[in-house]
Amino acid sequence: MFDIAIIGSGPAALSAAVNARQRNKSVCVFGRSLDSSLLFAAEKVDNYLGMPDLSGEEMLNQFYAHAVKRGVEFKESRISQIMPMGDRFMINADNEFFEAKTLILAIGLNKSRGIEGEMEYLGKGVSYCATCDGMLYRNKKVVVVGEHEEGEAEANFLADVCEKVTYVPLYQPVLNLKENVTVLNGKPKSVLGEGIRVTGIQVDDEMVECDGIFFAKNSTPPESLVFGLATDGKNIIVDRSMATNLPGVFAAGDCTGAPFQIAKAVGEGLVAALSAAAYIDANK
Amino acid sequence: MFDIAIIGSGPAALSAAVNARQRNKSVCVFGRSLDSSLLFAAEKVDNYLGMPDLSGEEMLNQFYAHAVKRGVEFKESRISQIMPMGDRFMINADNEFFEAKTLILAIGLNKSRGIEGEMEYLGKGVSYCATCDGMLYRNKKVVVVGEHEEGEAEANFLADVCEKVTYVPLYQPVLNLKENVTVLNGKPKSVLGEGIRVTGIQVDDEMVECDGIFFAKNSTPPESLVFGLATDGKNIIVDRSMATNLPGVFAAGDCTGAPFQIAKAVGEGLVAALSAAAYIDANK
Repeated sequence: MFDIAIIGSGPAALSAAVNARQRNKSVCVFGRSLDSSLLFAAEKVDNYLGMPDLSGEEMLNQFYAHAVKRGVEFKESRISQIMPMGDRFMINADNEFFEAKTLILAIGLNKSRGIEGEMEYLGKGVSYCATCDGMLYRNKKVVVVGEHEEGEAEANFLADVCEKVTYVPLYQPVLNLKENVTVLNGKPKSVLGEGIRVTGIQVDDEMVECDGIFFAKNSTPPESLVFGLATDGKNIIVDRSMATNLPGVFAAGDCTGAPFQIAKAVGEGLVAALSAAAYIDANK
Repeated sequence: MFDIAIIGSGPAALSAAVNARQRNKSVCVFGRSLDSSLLFAAEKVDNYLGMPDLSGEEMLNQFYAHAVKRGVEFKESRISQIMPMGDRFMINADNEFFEAKTLILAIGLNKSRGIEGEMEYLGKGVSYCATCDGMLYRNKKVVVVGEHEEGEAEANFLADVCEKVTYVPLYQPVLNLKENVTVLNGKPKSVLGEGIRVTGIQVDDEMVECDGIFFAKNSTPPESLVFGLATDGKNIIVDRSMATNLPGVFAAGDCTGAPFQIAKAVGEGLVAALSAAAYIDANK
């Protein structure tokens, strides 16, 4: 079990990691590769004090090197869901499970707007984790919407359990689907439902009837990553100590709102790490 | 007139300056020399992301070089008072006056606790600026408490105006006092008053009767630096945009509270600069 699990691998995450190590806490950074950070593509960054005239890639490499030097562990993965378990959190990292006493969410800009009805039916037929919720759909019909190739593994897993699995890929090419998975090309428009249950999904002009819809996303919207997390619809709500509404859960960087700048992210990462360390010490 | 006047010369101030320049605002940093920053004395700093294993002095020098490279102006000075003047602020820098549209206070830790009665009688006989308030004490008795040698200039100025000037130096040696200034060695204990006016000051066991008391301090407490500024007694109160309770006045770094760390200061400096720039653009 880690003291602090950091979700994300950008400047806020790396600053939190370096500072958690400085407080002698064990820490693991769960994130996609460095080149997934928006900063990576920046041609020139000149407003992070003390490091003028670098490319985004050069800056990220220096940040990463600093974290590695401090003994930070990295687990390159997509996080689909995090479950509060009393005094700890269970983290699903590409279906490998990890535990941590505290969380720091440094998940960047919320690019995942979701489609109509998606949030409304979250937990009522909409899920982001086949491993977690798949068994609920035994002998039922499900649709998997995949933003990336990991969606195929989700669909294949569900194909062993469900009556029918339809896969809607939002990328190309689709390579490793089982034979009993039906591919449907098109753009998901809305989640359909009656009362408290999903009844189908609209994909372009086609209405696909189903009991459950699984989204395999590049970035899970924060309120579905950690159930009950308060947002203002777009950003995670934090106080000046970077605490969220959930005990033991902190947030830092672009996911807490504008300005979307390195110095803000690095500063918030530091504050979140110190707050998480203080939380751990107070709850020993 | 500057777009943005930054008070202080530590990491928060320099980050604000670099970012104000990036938004194409004119900016001046009013502060004491770099070696007055608490960071300067740090043997090793290792938790500012991307710049591991530096001494505080090395880090400050890199910060300063970055700001100079971006065309930031510096005015090495002590700021005793800042007066709001409608759409601008008037800044007293060692009795030279400057104007700015907005302020960023990056004045560091509030080390100036003040003595008993000092805050209570601020504006009722207690002042931090002889040039501003001296004429109110024509033919009256005043005491000047000097934390540094600039206090002698204040005392000398008052000696031309007042009936009697007593100088209490908190440093050594005292070099340039006029003959008609009385030196009193000792530690100021409390400001004495009756109703709404100062009547004297207690220095060790001695009670000195006077009508006014001038403090020449290394760091002026924030609420007397800018009249009406809201603090929680120790820290300047800010929101997440680093705005204070006064329009056009922002704050960043240690003066806004713990943690007293570089990354927090640098991040807040950035946010304050962007907020000040947005304020200027909105009030054109």
